[in-house]
Amino acid sequence: MSRLEELHSMFYPRSVAVVGVSTNPQGWGGHAFIRRLKRVGFPGDVYAVNPKASNEVHGVKAYPSVKDIPEPPDMVIVSVPARRVPEVLEDCIAAGVKNVHIFSSGFSETQEEEGRQLEARITEIIRRGNLRVVGPNCMGLYVPASKFTAWGAPPKGVGKLAFLSQSGGHGEILSRYAQELGVYFSKVISFGNARGLQALDFLEYLAEDPDTGIIAMYLEGMKDGNRFTRLVREVNRLKPVIIWKGGLTESGARAAASHTASMAGEARVWDAFFAQTGAIRVNSLEEMAEVALLFLHLKPLLGRRVLLLGGGGGNAVAMADICSRNGLTVPTLAEHTRKQLAEFIPLAGNSIRNPLDVWLVQHNLEMFRRCIEIAVADPAIDLVIADRYPHNGDNGDDGPPDFEEGSRRVEEFIIEFAKNNPYGKPMVVAVNAPTNDPNGMRAAAELRLKFALAGVPAYLSQVSATQALSRFIGYHEFLAKTGEGKSEPALTCCRS
Amino acid sequence: MSRLEELHSMFYPRSVAVVGVSTNPQGWGGHAFIRRLKRVGFPGDVYAVNPKASNEVHGVKAYPSVKDIPEPPDMVIVSVPARRVPEVLEDCIAAGVKNVHIFSSGFSETQEEEGRQLEARITEIIRRGNLRVVGPNCMGLYVPASKFTAWGAPPKGVGKLAFLSQSGGHGEILSRYAQELGVYFSKVISFGNARGLQALDFLEYLAEDPDTGIIAMYLEGMKDGNRFTRLVREVNRLKPVIIWKGGLTESGARAAASHTASMAGEARVWDAFFAQTGAIRVNSLEEMAEVALLFLHLKPLLGRRVLLLGGGGGNAVAMADICSRNGLTVPTLAEHTRKQLAEFIPLAGNSIRNPLDVWLVQHNLEMFRRCIEIAVADPAIDLVIADRYPHNGDNGDDGPPDFEEGSRRVEEFIIEFAKNNPYGKPMVVAVNAPTNDPNGMRAAAELRLKFALAGVPAYLSQVSATQALSRFIGYHEFLAKTGEGKSEPALTCCRS
Repeated sequence: MSRLEELHSMFYPRSVAVVGVSTNPQGWGGHAFIRRLKRVGFPGDVYAVNPKASNEVHGVKAYPSVKDIPEPPDMVIVSVPARRVPEVLEDCIAAGVKNVHIFSSGFSETQEEEGRQLEARITEIIRRGNLRVVGPNCMGLYVPASKFTAWGAPPKGVGKLAFLSQSGGHGEILSRYAQELGVYFSKVISFGNARGLQALDFLEYLAEDPDTGIIAMYLEGMKDGNRFTRLVREVNRLKPVIIWKGGLTESGARAAASHTASMAGEARVWDAFFAQTGAIRVNSLEEMAEVALLFLHLKPLLGRRVLLLGGGGGNAVAMADICSRNGLTVPTLAEHTRKQLAEFIPLAGNSIRNPLDVWLVQHNLEMFRRCIEIAVADPAIDLVIADRYPHNGDNGDDGPPDFEEGSRRVEEFIIEFAKNNPYGKPMVVAVNAPTNDPNGMRAAAELRLKFALAGVPAYLSQVSATQALSRFIGYHEFLAKTGEGKSEPALTCCRS
Repeated sequence: MSRLEELHSMFYPRSVAVVGVSTNPQGWGGHAFIRRLKRVGFPGDVYAVNPKASNEVHGVKAYPSVKDIPEPPDMVIVSVPARRVPEVLEDCIAAGVKNVHIFSSGFSETQEEEGRQLEARITEIIRRGNLRVVGPNCMGLYVPASKFTAWGAPPKGVGKLAFLSQSGGHGEILSRYAQELGVYFSKVISFGNARGLQALDFLEYLAEDPDTGIIAMYLEGMKDGNRFTRLVREVNRLKPVIIWKGGLTESGARAAASHTASMAGEARVWDAFFAQTGAIRVNSLEEMAEVALLFLHLKPLLGRRVLLLGGGGGNAVAMADICSRNGLTVPTLAEHTRKQLAEFIPLAGNSIRNPLDVWLVQHNLEMFRRCIEIAVADPAIDLVIADRYPHNGDNGDDGPPDFEEGSRRVEEFIIEFAKNNPYGKPMVVAVNAPTNDPNGMRAAAELRLKFALAGVPAYLSQVSATQALSRFIGYHEFLAKTGEGKSEPALTCCRS
């Protein structure tokens, strides 16, 4: 049986029971899972289990034990105190339940003897009962397609990104953060201490899952390292694997031990892992989403030579330094190109070498169009980063009066040009907004979303734009180098 | 004559003439300098010079030439096309003018023969006439105390930070960005191609200037490297010197040549410079302001052992990794401390080792107070980073109903505790807001400003908080190591 078949009933359950449903309506716990399932319109049956409950709790049918439910539910969520988990698992076995998510924490991650012993006990029960278990100490599964989303941000659609995370908090945050950017999910899996199913098992599932096109992972520990490395290397060829490894520093490793009882491993082991697998290394959830955005919207890209288009001399130096530091280059445009540009751009106060430091490109569509059409044609250029300023009606009283309207026209042109330029050269946007002002931050975020939701990868800083691009290009370079390059883009925009 | 006396009439002019004042009211140029001077209430005389002007332009007295102004003005701003600059300088000499700011560009930064020759010509005139010149190709001086602020953000007050910048754009941005954080300026100096006064000359002035307590610099090139290095080393002992060096990469160096005709120099030369001088190295304007915030609000600090106080296991691992990567450590709290904490913090779902991963600290004042008072007393701790979430009335429907009000109470406590805790241990805030939502960004910015404007250094990410702290501590370590440590804080909060 394939992993896809084996785990199907976990990800697409027809019925879910939640064990440990307090009647207290506050905070997290069993009742919150039930409330969320009802709110997102989960179409299957939902049951509550509470020894003292009769008939109904929180609007769903209640039973004193899992064993009392007429048919074994496809999924059981366990939300009782750690010391009571063993008996609930025994009940699940007795009732013929196969799939269990243990939300409860208080096991080896406490680093106390009692927690360790409890974890050993449940591990024994899981094996003996042949249970498929997510957890303990985790948020479990999140599947927009089956509406089995009892946590995380309400799904806005079904997408290509899967997130396999040893942290439930990271799953919560990314499910919201990525969707805000128009990046939607196939599955989010929070697996915590992993005493039953391992990262490896889930990765096998995601590799086979036809809904998943990009796989992101947050890992603290790694079990069975050689097998995991081989699998990631294999999967990464078909579906880009983006990994944030937490706990690589000494302080971080101590925190990981307290979080999921993980042995975090040495930095050099992970360096070797990334070098061997070609998986894309990131250091935060933000970076994860930022790279995913490129895989969703751009075709494979091998060149690293950037055309920078923006204004301001100091800004041009900064942009060029940032590109260089992140492994991109900013070549001088060919003499032929510069000659064409010099015909309509005055040299004083501008630079036409690259960065194209031309103030008027911010709001003068004709200037922008002429600059980009001439410069993009230069064979020294592989891709474009356009530097854009937010315009919230507060661009200084010395700015041109048509700044806002002109800027909007340039933005519309960028969205069109990025998708359909005749050279097929990709274009991303870096919103340039060094501000601490709440309204300024809001305007920057709005401008960024305008591009990202229209399918043009856009970033809130030059640094994040270039880091994401460098990782994206590095992925394709790895595939090309290891002889497994894809000639066709594996993914296209998947917003629904 | 000291530099302070020599340059006094430039920074505190009683009269300013602007040469090259078009009657076109749009864009930048001479008329914009005049408009700004009038708007900020510059108390001295302002004159316009335009060959065709008679009587008045833009509301100020106009003359055909500098030579026609009855008394030589203390400062002349030159805003004519590059090829006309030589004759204006000759006029200044003839009129007995001493201080000139050449705003005009179109010199060697164009990398064209014509511009180079013009620059050689004006250099010769400047020397022969013994003129004190800022520029060419720059925004000039910005002095809140004398209201000689004809560019940049309108000053909100007079502060301790001086910014010496080879980029006028950076000066514009930082003058706004830092003030938004409550960091005010003594002087901003944009000096461009520096054919008259050099960075060195201005640095000597700022070293003597009693209004300046912190010196930030943006440099593209460096002339007279040995003298500059000696001076920075000397000044840095009394006034922290924060330097962003632009153009250190190959692409960046090319851009710098196009911007201010600077020879950017090799990375290893600058590595040696920073090692010798102890100057604080940053890579952006944001980082500059972020470090300045610490010098304004914290006492000197030598320890690097951080107490991290926040919630979420994955978040705790990330915070610890970020600290470690930026040279801070997150020590496990002493057993004695942990025992006290365990008395009221349940182990399941929390961690009391450090990071203190306790969800309730976000909005439960009593929990926050008990945690911080016990943990700060631990001798293993030198400073605190508190992880705080924005609350914009949208904290999820599963959050506690009193989240917002409780959070506000904790924030007030932090502001009080950061300033007056009996252990004298500094505390900074990292606002934790991974969001792309415009309203979420706005809420994060508001929360950050709430702390920063109350004198508690606050940051919009863990990364920026720890980087700034590491640089701040590194400065004091350098002074201690080189035997010139200050026992007293040189600076205190200087918001006016």
